[in-house]
Amino acid sequence: MAETEGKGRRIVVAVDEGEESLYALSWCLQNVVSQNSKDTLILVYAKPPSTVYPAMDGTGYLFSADIIASMEKYRRDVAACVMENAIRLCKDLPNIKVEKKVENGDPREVICDTVEKLAADLLVMGTHGYGLIKRAFLGSVSNYCAQNVNCPILIVKIPKSEGVSGCKRS
Amino acid sequence: MAETEGKGRRIVVAVDEGEESLYALSWCLQNVVSQNSKDTLILVYAKPPSTVYPAMDGTGYLFSADIIASMEKYRRDVAACVMENAIRLCKDLPNIKVEKKVENGDPREVICDTVEKLAADLLVMGTHGYGLIKRAFLGSVSNYCAQNVNCPILIVKIPKSEGVSGCKRS
Repeated sequence: MAETEGKGRRIVVAVDEGEESLYALSWCLQNVVSQNSKDTLILVYAKPPSTVYPAMDGTGYLFSADIIASMEKYRRDVAACVMENAIRLCKDLPNIKVEKKVENGDPREVICDTVEKLAADLLVMGTHGYGLIKRAFLGSVSNYCAQNVNCPILIVKIPKSEGVSGCKRS
Repeated sequence: MAETEGKGRRIVVAVDEGEESLYALSWCLQNVVSQNSKDTLILVYAKPPSTVYPAMDGTGYLFSADIIASMEKYRRDVAACVMENAIRLCKDLPNIKVEKKVENGDPREVICDTVEKLAADLLVMGTHGYGLIKRAFLGSVSNYCAQNVNCPILIVKIPKSEGVSGCKRS
């Protein structure tokens, strides 16, 4: 692993609320990053942007400033929880440098922009493994990134028999 | 890299005539496989199956047995050339075990079947980076594999500024 032992690589790992992304990070730590590497892991999380709500919805429900502030706090809490889980996984490799990056926006754009801006050497991400119909409607973040980033991409699908504890939205 | 130093992994690398697949193999050797690993690399090549031609085509051109035999020999030669190039790249890591696998058929099916049969730990492949229109018509082998294999997949796109010498069809 000449490159790892040399200058170190910039590895972007996309994390989200699903255990798939934590599994991908865990797989990367075990299989791509070595104990003595000088690699930098950049954990990137795309926080859903604040939505502009009308003062009242169709059912007459009032969106007060308090409710909107609570929703924003909820999004920040989820982001913090996701990052906390991810960083805990990295503790086994104390020599690697870990950076956090939380950006508002569509995950596809946030991930691709981060990879490009940092001139990353590798992008690591999980995949939800949606069925054909759901994938056709939702599109696939990993598929989009595979076609749009200009660096190698490692897509880790969680095997059916395994699992890691993710961040449960309460 | 605990897993590499332990029992070793079975890494399937899809190779073809394009330099993209040789670049993917080279990237994998530098970034995923370590000098002292017990990994096994399985180089898989999908050879286009023999086509059943009519005795004479629309222009009156005769497909003799000789011509058909020459075409089959040509396909075998290309397969041998691709494998030779790939194995040459692996020479820098003399400790890893390298296996060759040449199968007739559609690359998508051949690659996915090989990964499944060998219970591979990782699939590595290049991507031709076709434009949107061409991709829509041809489909993407890497996209198909990403959706259908049940193991992590590393897709390596060749950067625009780099290149490796592949096997030129003469």
